[in-house]
Amino acid sequence: MTHKIAILGASGYTGAELVRLIATHPTMEIVALSADRKAGQEMSEVYPHLRHLNLPKLVKMGEIDFSNVDLAFAALPHGLSQALVRDLPDSVKVVDLGADFRLRDPAEYEKWYGAPHVAVELQKTAVYGLTEFYRDDIKNARLVAGTGCNAATVQYALRPLISAGLIDLDRIICDLKNGISGAGRSLKENMLFAERSTDVLGYAQGGTHRHLGEFDQEFSQLAGRDVRIQFMPHLVPVNRGILADCYVDGDAQAIHAALVEQYQDEPFVTVLPKGKLPGMGQVMGSNQCHLGVVGDRIPGRALVVSALDNLCKGSSGQALQNANLMLGESEVTGLMSPPVFP
Amino acid sequence: MTHKIAILGASGYTGAELVRLIATHPTMEIVALSADRKAGQEMSEVYPHLRHLNLPKLVKMGEIDFSNVDLAFAALPHGLSQALVRDLPDSVKVVDLGADFRLRDPAEYEKWYGAPHVAVELQKTAVYGLTEFYRDDIKNARLVAGTGCNAATVQYALRPLISAGLIDLDRIICDLKNGISGAGRSLKENMLFAERSTDVLGYAQGGTHRHLGEFDQEFSQLAGRDVRIQFMPHLVPVNRGILADCYVDGDAQAIHAALVEQYQDEPFVTVLPKGKLPGMGQVMGSNQCHLGVVGDRIPGRALVVSALDNLCKGSSGQALQNANLMLGESEVTGLMSPPVFP
Amino acid sequence: MTHKIAILGASGYTGAELVRLIATHPTMEIVALSADRKAGQEMSEVYPHLRHLNLPKLVKMGEIDFSNVDLAFAALPHGLSQALVRDLPDSVKVVDLGADFRLRDPAEYEKWYGAPHVAVELQKTAVYGLTEFYRDDIKNARLVAGTGCNAATVQYALRPLISAGLIDLDRIICDLKNGISGAGRSLKENMLFAERSTDVLGYAQGGTHRHLGEFDQEFSQLAGRDVRIQFMPHLVPVNRGILADCYVDGDAQAIHAALVEQYQDEPFVTVLPKGKLPGMGQVMGSNQCHLGVVGDRIPGRALVVSALDNLCKGSSGQALQNANLMLGESEVTGLMSPPVFP
Amino acid sequence: MTHKIAILGASGYTGAELVRLIATHPTMEIVALSADRKAGQEMSEVYPHLRHLNLPKLVKMGEIDFSNVDLAFAALPHGLSQALVRDLPDSVKVVDLGADFRLRDPAEYEKWYGAPHVAVELQKTAVYGLTEFYRDDIKNARLVAGTGCNAATVQYALRPLISAGLIDLDRIICDLKNGISGAGRSLKENMLFAERSTDVLGYAQGGTHRHLGEFDQEFSQLAGRDVRIQFMPHLVPVNRGILADCYVDGDAQAIHAALVEQYQDEPFVTVLPKGKLPGMGQVMGSNQCHLGVVGDRIPGRALVVSALDNLCKGSSGQALQNANLMLGESEVTGLMSPPVFP
Repeated sequence: MTHKIAILGASGYTGAELVRLIATHPTMEIVALSADRKAGQEMSEVYPHLRHLNLPKLVKMGEIDFSNVDLAFAALPHGLSQALVRDLPDSVKVVDLGADFRLRDPAEYEKWYGAPHVAVELQKTAVYGLTEFYRDDIKNARLVAGTGCNAATVQYALRPLISAGLIDLDRIICDLKNGISGAGRSLKENMLFAERSTDVLGYAQGGTHRHLGEFDQEFSQLAGRDVRIQFMPHLVPVNRGILADCYVDGDAQAIHAALVEQYQDEPFVTVLPKGKLPGMGQVMGSNQCHLGVVGDRIPGRALVVSALDNLCKGSSGQALQNANLMLGESEVTGLMSPPVFP
Repeated sequence: MTHKIAILGASGYTGAELVRLIATHPTMEIVALSADRKAGQEMSEVYPHLRHLNLPKLVKMGEIDFSNVDLAFAALPHGLSQALVRDLPDSVKVVDLGADFRLRDPAEYEKWYGAPHVAVELQKTAVYGLTEFYRDDIKNARLVAGTGCNAATVQYALRPLISAGLIDLDRIICDLKNGISGAGRSLKENMLFAERSTDVLGYAQGGTHRHLGEFDQEFSQLAGRDVRIQFMPHLVPVNRGILADCYVDGDAQAIHAALVEQYQDEPFVTVLPKGKLPGMGQVMGSNQCHLGVVGDRIPGRALVVSALDNLCKGSSGQALQNANLMLGESEVTGLMSPPVFP
Repeated sequence: MTHKIAILGASGYTGAELVRLIATHPTMEIVALSADRKAGQEMSEVYPHLRHLNLPKLVKMGEIDFSNVDLAFAALPHGLSQALVRDLPDSVKVVDLGADFRLRDPAEYEKWYGAPHVAVELQKTAVYGLTEFYRDDIKNARLVAGTGCNAATVQYALRPLISAGLIDLDRIICDLKNGISGAGRSLKENMLFAERSTDVLGYAQGGTHRHLGEFDQEFSQLAGRDVRIQFMPHLVPVNRGILADCYVDGDAQAIHAALVEQYQDEPFVTVLPKGKLPGMGQVMGSNQCHLGVVGDRIPGRALVVSALDNLCKGSSGQALQNANLMLGESEVTGLMSPPVFP
Repeated sequence: MTHKIAILGASGYTGAELVRLIATHPTMEIVALSADRKAGQEMSEVYPHLRHLNLPKLVKMGEIDFSNVDLAFAALPHGLSQALVRDLPDSVKVVDLGADFRLRDPAEYEKWYGAPHVAVELQKTAVYGLTEFYRDDIKNARLVAGTGCNAATVQYALRPLISAGLIDLDRIICDLKNGISGAGRSLKENMLFAERSTDVLGYAQGGTHRHLGEFDQEFSQLAGRDVRIQFMPHLVPVNRGILADCYVDGDAQAIHAALVEQYQDEPFVTVLPKGKLPGMGQVMGSNQCHLGVVGDRIPGRALVVSALDNLCKGSSGQALQNANLMLGESEVTGLMSPPVFP
């Protein structure tokens, strides 16, 4: 049986990544691609690397016949998914790659995104899309809210440690190095090649990054108390990848053991031998997350490093992993290609 | 039925690329990986991006039991394959990714590679591995000689034009832009990041690049007369990719039509609409070759641009495409993943 | 005596490069910086790398008191300089970095730039700013028209050969590799980091690049007959630099000798030993142009390669070199810093 | 008066950077360049970007007539300077860019560098070369020990805070992003372009980086007690630059004020307005260090970010700054060129 798939917002990088992944998926067929500003164009004009594929033309969202769609991926700018998903037929399952349904508390949503949520009832039914930790709920969900890419990267490193009480919750510092594709394809002067190619630069300083809303929600729930992490992202001149250095107070040996145990059967999360660090380049183009743990010369300190591809495991790969579950397929279908290196 | 595969020289970039491609191949199993200097190591130590795969340890070539091998890929430094392949059991099919069996004339081999060929009888049986033009011979071959990566890129652009007599054979100039991975993983000062990352530099100037031996052989045979092209490669700061600008005297319209006709049924060669140019970045990580044709304000001039990924379509992807044919599989198996962009 | 300098269009890359160069110039003082859209901002907000300098605030052009300006650099978008320069007091010398005054024939201007020239009388007085070939005229000029950056790169390679009749004028092919900063700081989707960083891509194909107007004008005048070259630029993922491969029919030895003789006393043009090729990276951040000549295995063919930094020798450095001459200073003042490598 | 300068180890990147900087220095003349393995070559063969300069040929160190040398820069691999400097005539002042004389305690030297110091008496006379903090001693020194490039970057951020008692000395975490040129020109597989160009990777994890010896020495002395910082460097795909994120417990406002006061008259250290972060790219090619301070949503936390060019302010620029002082010149001579951007 073939599942009929629509990709809403197919002209962005996560949309194109979904097309790339689904192109070789044995039981999914892309029946609709939407892109409001580029409606009417062939996908090959917007993304020449997809030229050899036989894809539907880009259309406006309203032109899609959703009665012919089993599952829609919504890869839309933040804020646009709420009303859209609310108005879709119930028969359409939805994986939202944006931020609209990540925060369970509408007040938190408004705080971080600056506008009230317009589909609060629907929000209550959404499942947070960090597959390895919400797998059972995802299988039965109609609406899954993809996580922030940074949020996924850091959670793989920290969730098992918080759950097991292995680290000091008041001393977590996460220094992230982020590939540029995370900024998307929109036009910003500071995203020009000439601006970025020889620069490394922090942004969203001081605890203002919106993914903090996800950390606050998830880590506090895990810990059973308020948890606030210090979080500092940086742009590095690489297309794809997130490397998160998580500095914690805790025992490196115990931390490593906890991660090994948590992920030993996971197909997409690998814990390196203790003392080894993952590099951003060793997961590129794949749905893999690599984790490393090292101690420090200062007793009681540890560093947990997490690496994944922001467009794949951090976004579109995660979305496909969840869609597989929602459609009753094996979770790994279409996601097993190893990273591309060099 | 599963085909048992050995990769000889697995510690180089083309070896790692073969592992990447074969990892998701439904009917191939890697049973042996050799690497003389790194024998004894796990592949994950040499290539951390392959860590999550279950791979045999690297061994010396002599340790491999070839009676258990259906097909061997030889990704060895030039000159090492000749004696090796000569001494393998006849039951083992071989795809050689090196240069040892590309030139049919031993004198040409000695001229370009500086040493006499040591397996001249075997050379006579080798089939040149440009799949789209030697498909039938490859199906029945025991030994296929992979083409040079530059040689493949340019031949996709020019073979149909030479065959059809559409261009002036004495006025062909090919200006290539080559990704750095083509230089392999060996230690050279001029391949350091700091040397290459902000530079574009020609090399093998004056008609000294060894792939010219392949052009001379193939183009002269096609034309039925001696053909010598002018060929100038450059290093550009990109990991993967070859972009070949082929300047020819001929009619752009007729050239475009000839390419469209030649490749209309090919799964891995795409001709863009006339006037459009392919970019190196739109084939990265895939087995695709994109071709573009434009005319010029000077009447009678045309430019044919060819783009492919040197490690994949230019080397390991081509090798797998040929191996599929030699083993009776569909030519495209394991090779349909679209390019990775961005 | 200190010369009072205005930079019009200081918020673009060539404007910032002028500031960088003039910052250590012993006899120039920047008294005004204009930038229409960013008027009111400090230069340090627009270009943080210039923060430690004591610079005037950005203003609108109309706010500048030109009676206090000895020389103005106009680094404006094409088309804006004509009326501006026409309306400046005669006491202000002008170096225009744009295209407005490069083409002596108004019909050619209109052909390449798509609009009639609005300051035709002024155009007649402008001197073409390729310093090494128009030095005497520049010394006495009130208005100097900076060359196109590509136009400068290729002319250093070809002018002496055309003058001396050393090459076939009907067989000149120039394949350029261009750093991204040449596209300026304006917002274009295809100039985003994620689009450019792993791509090499041709543009202005088929003889449509506007710098061809300059080649037609200059080469035809030198040759005393119409000359049309074939010209193909490419974007490479480097910030600064142009590498021009000029394929010609001629004797490499004679060509090399002619270039050596032409440039032997030039402070900013260096001819490498015959057979050696310059790299784009070896002139970065400097006012140097490096030239190399190689022959080919095909008799009668030669390749002349020219490398310079598009923002410096190709634009702002050339402009300062010309301004020095116009103001009676030594031509080299402020321009002798060697290239930055790595 | 012209000072006669020798550069020992001129074939490395810091040696080439010294040549670049001194080329336009009004009162320094390079009389000797040494490079043991490349002795006999012209500098233009080793560094084509310096071709247009008139430089002495590379010689072996023993061939230099040191009676004709006023000051020698030693840009040698760690361990080689000790005996060398010991054996030089007293008339030659020395700026050592290596690690040999940085640590005042021979036991600390042996601990971090794995071998006993062979010139302990000389070590006692060496002045630590962080100009802004050792200026008076440097003026009178015969031997100045250049700091580690990371050590300089972090000390600009932290010294004033430690001196003023503004931060918790037990909670300092420094996460560094380092340009690749810091690894030098030696051949290492992990420094190849293909390995580094799309990767970000930590190294010297766990508190093993040798520059920690400098931090321990300097910060403990400032604080009057043992200070141990947590320090984690990463390779980023940029040629030049260090960006140090220093996470501290302290009041951001007070920290910013202390830095502003400390550096208000310094020509080469700039403190950005509070809340603004420096980027690695805004100091490239210059002797500038930019500092930024931001608070966090977590009260009592601050981030101090320091950016400089490792080859210039972090090494060769610092060395020239010190040499200027040792020779009675203005400290800034030859060092005022603004950064190169883009």
